[in-house]
Amino acid sequence: MSTHTTDLRVGMIGYAFMGTAHSQAWRTVNRVFDLPMQARMAVVCGRGEAKVAEAAAQLGWQEHTSDWRALVARDDVDLIDICTPGDSHAEIAIAALDAGKHVLCEKPLANTLDEAQAMAAAAARAAALGVRSMCGFNYRRVPAVSLMRRMIAEGRLGEIRHVRAVYLQDWITDPEFPLVWRLQKDKAGSGALGDIGAHIIDLTQYVVGQRIAGVSALTETFVKHRPLPGASSGLSAAASDGSGGGPAGRGEVTVDDAALFLARLDGGAIATYEATRFATGRKNGLRVEINGSRGSLVFDFERMNELEFYDATLPAAEQGFTRILVTEPTHPYMSGWWPPGHLIGYEHSFTHQARDLIEAIATGADVAPSFADALQVQLVLDAVVRSAQLGSTWLEVKSAPTEAIA
Amino acid sequence: MSTHTTDLRVGMIGYAFMGTAHSQAWRTVNRVFDLPMQARMAVVCGRGEAKVAEAAAQLGWQEHTSDWRALVARDDVDLIDICTPGDSHAEIAIAALDAGKHVLCEKPLANTLDEAQAMAAAAARAAALGVRSMCGFNYRRVPAVSLMRRMIAEGRLGEIRHVRAVYLQDWITDPEFPLVWRLQKDKAGSGALGDIGAHIIDLTQYVVGQRIAGVSALTETFVKHRPLPGASSGLSAAASDGSGGGPAGRGEVTVDDAALFLARLDGGAIATYEATRFATGRKNGLRVEINGSRGSLVFDFERMNELEFYDATLPAAEQGFTRILVTEPTHPYMSGWWPPGHLIGYEHSFTHQARDLIEAIATGADVAPSFADALQVQLVLDAVVRSAQLGSTWLEVKSAPTEAIA
Amino acid sequence: MSTHTTDLRVGMIGYAFMGTAHSQAWRTVNRVFDLPMQARMAVVCGRGEAKVAEAAAQLGWQEHTSDWRALVARDDVDLIDICTPGDSHAEIAIAALDAGKHVLCEKPLANTLDEAQAMAAAAARAAALGVRSMCGFNYRRVPAVSLMRRMIAEGRLGEIRHVRAVYLQDWITDPEFPLVWRLQKDKAGSGALGDIGAHIIDLTQYVVGQRIAGVSALTETFVKHRPLPGASSGLSAAASDGSGGGPAGRGEVTVDDAALFLARLDGGAIATYEATRFATGRKNGLRVEINGSRGSLVFDFERMNELEFYDATLPAAEQGFTRILVTEPTHPYMSGWWPPGHLIGYEHSFTHQARDLIEAIATGADVAPSFADALQVQLVLDAVVRSAQLGSTWLEVKSAPTEAIA
Amino acid sequence: MSTHTTDLRVGMIGYAFMGTAHSQAWRTVNRVFDLPMQARMAVVCGRGEAKVAEAAAQLGWQEHTSDWRALVARDDVDLIDICTPGDSHAEIAIAALDAGKHVLCEKPLANTLDEAQAMAAAAARAAALGVRSMCGFNYRRVPAVSLMRRMIAEGRLGEIRHVRAVYLQDWITDPEFPLVWRLQKDKAGSGALGDIGAHIIDLTQYVVGQRIAGVSALTETFVKHRPLPGASSGLSAAASDGSGGGPAGRGEVTVDDAALFLARLDGGAIATYEATRFATGRKNGLRVEINGSRGSLVFDFERMNELEFYDATLPAAEQGFTRILVTEPTHPYMSGWWPPGHLIGYEHSFTHQARDLIEAIATGADVAPSFADALQVQLVLDAVVRSAQLGSTWLEVKSAPTEAIA
Repeated sequence: MSTHTTDLRVGMIGYAFMGTAHSQAWRTVNRVFDLPMQARMAVVCGRGEAKVAEAAAQLGWQEHTSDWRALVARDDVDLIDICTPGDSHAEIAIAALDAGKHVLCEKPLANTLDEAQAMAAAAARAAALGVRSMCGFNYRRVPAVSLMRRMIAEGRLGEIRHVRAVYLQDWITDPEFPLVWRLQKDKAGSGALGDIGAHIIDLTQYVVGQRIAGVSALTETFVKHRPLPGASSGLSAAASDGSGGGPAGRGEVTVDDAALFLARLDGGAIATYEATRFATGRKNGLRVEINGSRGSLVFDFERMNELEFYDATLPAAEQGFTRILVTEPTHPYMSGWWPPGHLIGYEHSFTHQARDLIEAIATGADVAPSFADALQVQLVLDAVVRSAQLGSTWLEVKSAPTEAIA
Repeated sequence: MSTHTTDLRVGMIGYAFMGTAHSQAWRTVNRVFDLPMQARMAVVCGRGEAKVAEAAAQLGWQEHTSDWRALVARDDVDLIDICTPGDSHAEIAIAALDAGKHVLCEKPLANTLDEAQAMAAAAARAAALGVRSMCGFNYRRVPAVSLMRRMIAEGRLGEIRHVRAVYLQDWITDPEFPLVWRLQKDKAGSGALGDIGAHIIDLTQYVVGQRIAGVSALTETFVKHRPLPGASSGLSAAASDGSGGGPAGRGEVTVDDAALFLARLDGGAIATYEATRFATGRKNGLRVEINGSRGSLVFDFERMNELEFYDATLPAAEQGFTRILVTEPTHPYMSGWWPPGHLIGYEHSFTHQARDLIEAIATGADVAPSFADALQVQLVLDAVVRSAQLGSTWLEVKSAPTEAIA
Repeated sequence: MSTHTTDLRVGMIGYAFMGTAHSQAWRTVNRVFDLPMQARMAVVCGRGEAKVAEAAAQLGWQEHTSDWRALVARDDVDLIDICTPGDSHAEIAIAALDAGKHVLCEKPLANTLDEAQAMAAAAARAAALGVRSMCGFNYRRVPAVSLMRRMIAEGRLGEIRHVRAVYLQDWITDPEFPLVWRLQKDKAGSGALGDIGAHIIDLTQYVVGQRIAGVSALTETFVKHRPLPGASSGLSAAASDGSGGGPAGRGEVTVDDAALFLARLDGGAIATYEATRFATGRKNGLRVEINGSRGSLVFDFERMNELEFYDATLPAAEQGFTRILVTEPTHPYMSGWWPPGHLIGYEHSFTHQARDLIEAIATGADVAPSFADALQVQLVLDAVVRSAQLGSTWLEVKSAPTEAIA
Repeated sequence: MSTHTTDLRVGMIGYAFMGTAHSQAWRTVNRVFDLPMQARMAVVCGRGEAKVAEAAAQLGWQEHTSDWRALVARDDVDLIDICTPGDSHAEIAIAALDAGKHVLCEKPLANTLDEAQAMAAAAARAAALGVRSMCGFNYRRVPAVSLMRRMIAEGRLGEIRHVRAVYLQDWITDPEFPLVWRLQKDKAGSGALGDIGAHIIDLTQYVVGQRIAGVSALTETFVKHRPLPGASSGLSAAASDGSGGGPAGRGEVTVDDAALFLARLDGGAIATYEATRFATGRKNGLRVEINGSRGSLVFDFERMNELEFYDATLPAAEQGFTRILVTEPTHPYMSGWWPPGHLIGYEHSFTHQARDLIEAIATGADVAPSFADALQVQLVLDAVVRSAQLGSTWLEVKSAPTEAIA
C-alpha cells in the first residue's frame, strides 16, 4: 500500500440512482486499489436542503449544499462529479472546468448537440491547463467489456464484420407507469435512445475501435400519454419536479420508447442497434455480439462476469463459444477483488471508473472516454433522431472535431 | 392405426441437401403418424442419369428419371416435390400444377417476383380444382415454433411490441470458399437474404400473425470474388454446373453475404432482421425474440427443442425466462415421437411438413404456407433488395393479391 | 454408394418404445450411411397376434409372428434384435446365439447376475463361430459422447480425477401413476438403477476407460404402493401383463425409485452416481461431468448436440467451458447427416448403433459394448443393490471373467 | 433514513481474504440499508504490527493492534469479528463472549468437535445475558439462496425428495501449488470438506429446513506432498507461518482434496454431496439442486444473481426451468441495491450478513446461523470424516444439544 500524499476532494452534484452508485465507488476505490491519491467524499449537492442533508448522512459525505455554483467555486474541492439529469450537464460542467476543477460527468454528455460541443470545447480548454474530464460510460469498465476491447485490439477476432447490439429493458411496459423525468424530452433529451442506446453506441465503438459512420433509424413511442407522477427518483416512479399538471392528470410522453438503427462503421463492419424499454422480461439486457474473420465475442450484462469467445483458429472439432468467467487475476481490474469465481456486481464498474480517473489525475494523463468521445456519441444520437424523423433516410454521422476514440 | 386405403405417390425433383431431407420425411412420416394416406417414394428426378440412379438407390426411391417434364406428366404420380435451386421452381411448379399434381416447393418460392406471382396464380387456379400446393418453410413445423404461434394466438404475449430476428451462419467466412451456386444470383436469386432471411421473414410473420408493412435495408458482400468451384452440392463446396470458368479462376460473387433491415409490422410491432453467412461461430443460428405487453418468447434453432417463455403475469418474484423443453405429448407434433426429454432433430420438421400436407390432401383442406403466403415473403425480399439499392430508403411492402397468412 | 451385395435380415422381438426406436434405425441406417450390408426389416415378433400385425404395418416390417422360438430358428433371418423387458433377455438371447444368429440385446443385459453370466458365456461360444453380439447401450453412440471418449483417449483431460454422473427423470413423481412393468422387480429387475443407472455406469466407464472398482450405495422407494394399471407400453402408464390384481386395487412397488452411490474407478478417479425418477422437471437428464488434470468435459442429454470442454492448457485469461456444437463433419457419425448446426435427435443414436453393428458383422470384427461389457455393468448394479441392502457398506465390484471394456 | 442513536464498534481479528470481505461489509452496510445502529470500523487486529498497520490504512480501520486478548477486553468495542483460520476460533470466540462482546465468527466454527461444543456452550451462556453470536455462513445471504429458503418454506416444492449439492473449485490441481495453511490439518482442520463442504451442508439444511441424519462418505487426497510455501494469504499461494521446513522442501498434505458423501435428511429427502478443489474449470462452483413433489430449485454460485425454478403445477405445455433474475425489489435484500437487472457480487452476501446481525443486536433478537447451528454442521463434518475412515460405513449424525436450525 502506498502512502497517500495527496487527497482528491470530490464534490458530487445529484444523489439519486447515479449519485448512489458514484458514492459507493468513491467510498470503495482506495480500499480495493492501491492508488497515488486518496479520494475524499467532501461535499454532496442537491436541490432540497433537507433532502440533501439526509443524503449526505446516508451516503457518507462530509458536507452538503444546495448551491452548485458555490460548490464549483470552492477552493477545497478538486473534482466535480455530475450526477444530475442531462439538462443541467452543460452549465455545471463548463462552470466547473472553467473553475479549474476536474470533472466526471454522467452520460449522455448533454441533451443537445450544441451543449455537447460547448462542453467538449470547455474540456479542451481546461485540458491545456492540466484539468481532466471524463464522461461516465461506466460499462467500458466492466471487466468483460475491457477484455473484449483488449482481445479485439490484439487481433483475436481478425477483421470485424458484424456488430449486433441491443439494450433491452422493460420498466415502462405498464401504460400506467407515470411520466417520470426520463420520459420528458426537456429533462432527458431523448428516451431509450439517449439513456441506454448511448451506452451501446459508446461500448461497441470502444471495443471494436471503429466509429459509426452512417445510420438508418426508426423510433417509436408505444404509450403516448401517461399519468403525471407524484415524486420521482432514479428509475423508480417517484416524483419529478416541474412535470406540470396535477396528480390526477396525464401528460404526453415526449421521448422515444424504443429506437432501432442500422449502421456502417468506418472500418467496414455493419451493425444493428436497438434500445428499448418495452422488452418484457429484459431487465438490463445490454447484449453485444461482434463477429470477425477469426472469431467472435458475446457479452450480456445480465451475466456481466462472463464473456463468450469463439476462436475460429482452433481445430474444427473443438471450436465453440467459450464461456470465460472474467474473474481471474489476469483479467482487467480483477486483481483488486476476490479469488476466481467470486463475482462482482454492477457498482464495481463505477469503482473501476473512479480508479482510472484518479490515476489519470495523479499522473497527468488523458483519460477516456473524454468529452470529445462523448460528443462523438452525441453526433450518432443526433443522426439517429434525424434519420427517424426523415423516415429512416440514411444519414452520415459528422465527425467530432477533436481527437480519436481513446 | 388406420388402414391406408390410398397411396400418395411422390415424384421428387432434386436430390441434394433438400432432397435428402425430404426423402427422410417421406420415408418416415407414415411410420410415426397415423395418416389417411400412405406416402410412396415413387420417382426421383435429377439431371445426370448415373447420379440420379445412385441417389435413388441410396435414398430408397422406387424409380428414377432425368426428365422432369415426363415425370410431371405421369399418371401414376400424385405429388411433385421440388427440391431444386430457385431458378427452376417456377417452370416446374406451374407445369406440375397445371398437370393436376399437388406440389410441395422448396423456399424461397422463386428467384423473381414475376415468377412468384405466376406461381401463386397457378396455385390458385389449381386449388379451384382440388389441387394442393405448399411452400417448404419447414421451420414453421419445428414444435417449438408451432408452440410460439399457438401461445401468441392464445394471447399469452398480449400486444406484440418487438420482433428481433437473426439467421446467422458462417460457412463462407473463408475467402477461399468457392463460388457455389448459392453465391450466384442467376441460380439463387439472392444470397443470405433469400436463403435464410426468407425463413425468418416467414417464421416471424407466422408466429406473430402480422405482416411486414415496410422496411429500411442494408446489404453487404464482404468477399467480392471467390475461386470457381469444381463440383457443388448442398451447402458444401462441391461443384456447380455452369459456373463458367476453370478451376484456377475466380468469379464475382453476385449475391449478398449479409442483409439487415428494420421493419414495421401491420399490427404495430417494430422489428430488426439480420441474415448473414459471416457470423463466425454461428452454424445455424436462427434466433427469434418476440416481446409483448404480457410476455416474451425466444427461440434459437441451435437449441431447437427448447422455447423460452417469459410470463409477465406471474408474481414479480417468480418471473423469469422459462426454458420449456418442447418434448411433451401436449406439444405440437410430439405425440408421435419419443417420451419427454428425448430430443428430435432438424429433419423432423420435414416429416411434420409432410404429415400436414398429406392430411390436407386427404381431407381436401388448404394448407399453409401457401404459394400466396410465399409470394408475400417474396414481396418483402423484393422491398429489402430495393431499399438497400436506394441507400436504406424506407419502402412499403406491397400486399400479396390473394389470401391472408394462414 | 456401394452396391449392397449382402442383406442383413433382422428379426425384432418387442415393438414398444425400444422396438419403435430400433425400427427407425433399421429403416434409416442404409439411407444415411454407406455400408457393406443392407438391413432388411424382415420379421417383427410380439405376444398378441393382432397387435403385432398392427405393429408390423405401422413400423414397416415385412412379416410378423407371435412365436419367438420359431423366429429364432428361421434360416432366413440373420440377426435377432431383442427389445423386450429384461426378464426374457437371457432365454431369447441364448437361444438365438446358439442358433447362430447375431444378437442385439437391449440393456440392461439381464435381470440377474446369473442370467447375465450365462448370456456372456453364450456370446463367447458364439463369437468363436463368427457370431456377433452387442448390448444396446445406445448413448455411447450419441456423437457428443463418442467425442468425449475420443478426447479423453487422446489425453485432452490428462489424469482423470472426478466423475459426476446423474440420470434424472420425473415420470413417476405422481403417486397415482400406475404400477407399470418397469416398477415390478420380476419384470424389470430393478427400478431407476437398472433402467437408467445402467446407462450412466456404462457411459462413464466407456468414456473414461476405467472400470468401477467399488461402491457405497443407498436406494429409496418414495411411493411404496401404486394403482394397478390397465394396460402398459413403454414409458407410458398403459397396461402390464400379469401385474396381478384388479384395476381398482393397488400393488406394491418392488423396485427402487432412486439409487445413489459413491464409487472408486480402477484408474484412480472417484465418482458420484445418481439415478432417479423423482427429479421433478428433469425429463431425460443424463448428465456427466469428468474432471481431469488438464481439462474437463460436460455432457447433458437434454442438450445432446452439445459438449462442453474446458481446456486448462489455454492462456489463463481465455480459459472457460467451450460449448462445442457437435454437428461438424469431423465429429463422430455426423458426416452422414446434415450441415453444421442442423441438430440430430434421440433416435439417431440407434441408427449409429445399427451402423456399427452392421459393419462389425460385415467385416467379422468385434463390436462394443459386448455382452461381457454388459456383464461388467451388471456386476456394478449387483454391488450397488447389495451395498444398499447392507446399509451403504463399501463393496468391491467383482471382475467380469472375460475381456476388457472396448 | 434513521438517526443512528447507537454505534456498534467492531473489532476485527484477521485481515486476509475474509477480513477484506468483512471490511467491505462493515464499510457499506449503513450506506445501503437503513439500520438502527451504525457500524464503526474501530480496531483491526493481526499478528505482525507493521502488516496490521498497513491493513488498517488500506481497509479503513481507525485503530490496529496485534494483541487480540487486549482487544477483547476493551470497553469501547462492542463486537468481535473473527476472520482467522479455524485453529484459533474457539479461544478467541469464548474469550470474547465471556467478555460480553457480540461475536461474528467465520466458518467452519472450529477445527474439532470439542471446540465447537465449547463455543456453542459459551454462546448459550452469553445469550442469556443478551450477547449475540453468529457463524459466518455468508452464502445464506445471497438473495437467490434466501429466496430458495422462502419458496421452500412456502411449500412451492411440496415434499422434498432430493438434494444434490456440489462445491467445486480447482485452485490446487497443479501439484506444484504450495502447501498453504488450508492444506494443513492443524491449521485448517480439514481440506475441501471443512472449507467448502461446510458451506453446502449449512446451505442445504437451511433452505430445505431438514437436518442431515446419516452419511456414507469417501475422501481422497490426490496430491500427497507439495512444495513448502514462502508466504501465505487467503486463497493464494503465499506464506504460511509455522509450516515447518525450508522453501526448497516438500511437506505432506494432511487434509482431503475432495470429500464425497451420500446422506439422508431427517425429513425424508436423500442427498449427494461433493466438495473438491480438483474440479478443473470450476472456480467457485457451489451448485445445489432440490427436487420436491411440486417443483424444483437450482442455484449455481457462478451465476449467483439467478435462481432456476421449476413449477410442476403449471400447465404441462408451459412447464420448464425458469431463470429468475434475483434483482427485483421483492427479492430478499435487493431493495437496498440497484434497479432490476443490475447485478450484485460476492461481497454483498457479507453486507447482508452484517445487516441482519446489526438488526438482531439492536432489537435483542436471535440471529441465525447460531453457534448451535454451526455445531450441527460440525457434527456432520465429523461423521463424514469418520465414515470415510471406516470405509464408507453408514454413520448417524448425532444431534446438536440445543436449538433447531433457524
